[in-house]
Amino acid sequence: MKTVRLILIGLGNLGRRLCQVLEEKRDYVRQRYDLDLMLVGAADSRGAAYDPVNGLDPGRLVTIKARGGSIADYPDIGEENWLATALVAAAEADVLLEASPVNLEEGAEPGISCIRTALRRGMHVTTPNKGPLVVAYQELHELAAAHDAQLRFDGTVAGGLPALYLGQRDLRGAVIKRMEAVPNLCTGYVMDMLADGMGWEEATARAYEAGVLEGDGSWDLEGWDAAAKLVILANGVLSQPTGMDDVQRTGITGLAPDQLQSAQARGERYRLLASAEREAEGSYRLSVAPVPLRADHPLGRLGRKQMGVVYETDIYGTITAIIDEPSPVPSAATMLRDVLDIYA
Amino acid sequence: MKTVRLILIGLGNLGRRLCQVLEEKRDYVRQRYDLDLMLVGAADSRGAAYDPVNGLDPGRLVTIKARGGSIADYPDIGEENWLATALVAAAEADVLLEASPVNLEEGAEPGISCIRTALRRGMHVTTPNKGPLVVAYQELHELAAAHDAQLRFDGTVAGGLPALYLGQRDLRGAVIKRMEAVPNLCTGYVMDMLADGMGWEEATARAYEAGVLEGDGSWDLEGWDAAAKLVILANGVLSQPTGMDDVQRTGITGLAPDQLQSAQARGERYRLLASAEREAEGSYRLSVAPVPLRADHPLGRLGRKQMGVVYETDIYGTITAIIDEPSPVPSAATMLRDVLDIYA
Repeated sequence: MKTVRLILIGLGNLGRRLCQVLEEKRDYVRQRYDLDLMLVGAADSRGAAYDPVNGLDPGRLVTIKARGGSIADYPDIGEENWLATALVAAAEADVLLEASPVNLEEGAEPGISCIRTALRRGMHVTTPNKGPLVVAYQELHELAAAHDAQLRFDGTVAGGLPALYLGQRDLRGAVIKRMEAVPNLCTGYVMDMLADGMGWEEATARAYEAGVLEGDGSWDLEGWDAAAKLVILANGVLSQPTGMDDVQRTGITGLAPDQLQSAQARGERYRLLASAEREAEGSYRLSVAPVPLRADHPLGRLGRKQMGVVYETDIYGTITAIIDEPSPVPSAATMLRDVLDIYA
Repeated sequence: MKTVRLILIGLGNLGRRLCQVLEEKRDYVRQRYDLDLMLVGAADSRGAAYDPVNGLDPGRLVTIKARGGSIADYPDIGEENWLATALVAAAEADVLLEASPVNLEEGAEPGISCIRTALRRGMHVTTPNKGPLVVAYQELHELAAAHDAQLRFDGTVAGGLPALYLGQRDLRGAVIKRMEAVPNLCTGYVMDMLADGMGWEEATARAYEAGVLEGDGSWDLEGWDAAAKLVILANGVLSQPTGMDDVQRTGITGLAPDQLQSAQARGERYRLLASAEREAEGSYRLSVAPVPLRADHPLGRLGRKQMGVVYETDIYGTITAIIDEPSPVPSAATMLRDVLDIYA
């Protein structure tokens, strides 16, 4: 049996759920894939813990975080003020699981530094963190190639849906004529509430309650999140070097509730659609905008906990993939998918 | 640039369309993947042609077949009565594209012999032919492993939809709790016609005209085709050794048109559903049966040219993939997908 040593950065919404998944799946992965996934180190914003011999207990990490603690509180080996970047620089590990928050304001730190350090050390990386990919897609891929390391980021787009893998692997040989995606949950959630007759204040309050909206909300509601995901799809699937400035972006905050209500009365459902349209010369026009979708649109009947992507191709017809994601577990589990894809 | 030498067996519906795809995509594949896909040999039921130096012109093969000819008529190198199995045994090639017809009555010949011969010679194989996989899934996989060759068959299920790849690669680490598939077009096509008020005779006649039904129809209408696809999904995705006898099979011929009409009046749509349900002890109960699907079922709104699959999992939520396949090109192009997946 091969032991795969993991270090995890970030113990928020996704990092904690990944710990649950690692705990629940350890035996299954041993039996099915002959791999022992061993968490040897972890860091959050207050500290870190590292034990290359016995590893860390992912279940214990969940318990510590659930009572408001930090990894620094991990018995015996937790250390206050041990920075994530320092852990990545020092730890002997095979894969970095980078699950720190998106932080485009501060140059995608600390995620981007952790990823750079890991790749330079020849560690594979998997991350659901869009920030580093949006800021430095090309640079990070070149760094990975130069150090013979793999950089995976299937969880950055549409949660647990393998939207990137589908586009990258299963459409090989095809020209994608059009791509459309509903790559996040929260905007659809809010728009459905508005369509049902709520005002803006109540609709966003409900979205916060349901845990689909976070922070001040503008990252999602102004379409930045969808644009970031489109940037990653454009780079990763359409092979078009793309940054945030290349996306024409319209958020949902300009919508009046009665627009949404009358669309619903017509049998249409608004979704914040991220689209790429192939133009004559072969490049793609990229946009994010709220669009009323008819029921016969492939993404026209998405529920509040569903995301999806449509690839219209020349030789594989039109392929639609949809995920029903009732909790953030699938988004977190993409890191397991990536690790198994590298080793299994 | 690496040259990949291909031999193609079978120039029916899929083989001919693959030739079109190979012709149209040759330059694109050279540029994008640095691969030169060269057709060095081909065989149909009347003869074969082989030229390891200059290769065959796929476009010319299409022309010859379109006017009712055989590969034996290929200028200079075509030979009458040169059997497919003999070509595979003699040719120097890297990949066998096995596109002969499904033929379960005669032990899946000649496809199965061609595949065995190719694998024993260390050739990779890709095939959309269900027969050999249904008859000898385990044996062929062991043979491939023993000769370090790859056996791909993504086109056997749901045409151009990567239903198998999705289940095999993107759900790694998950337990599939339930799988449902509408893996072919023709039964849905016929049932929609019946629901629209046609009688059986007219509905099947239309399906023949549209090219979705072939032969005497019983292979499809009695559910054998869907059962064969379920057998491949069960072996390939669910890792459950399965043969045709393990599937509880009900075809659509017992349906009365008024059943379908009243379902349509209720807003439901009948589809021949191939399902796998995980039972307490971890094995799957497999069945094929016509089922009236509500509009809110993930496959409940499939059109006449659409197929799909649903995977209900423990850690990746529920993932649905649907293909809109207006012609058999996507089914044929799965062989290109498989070749690129091996080499690109």
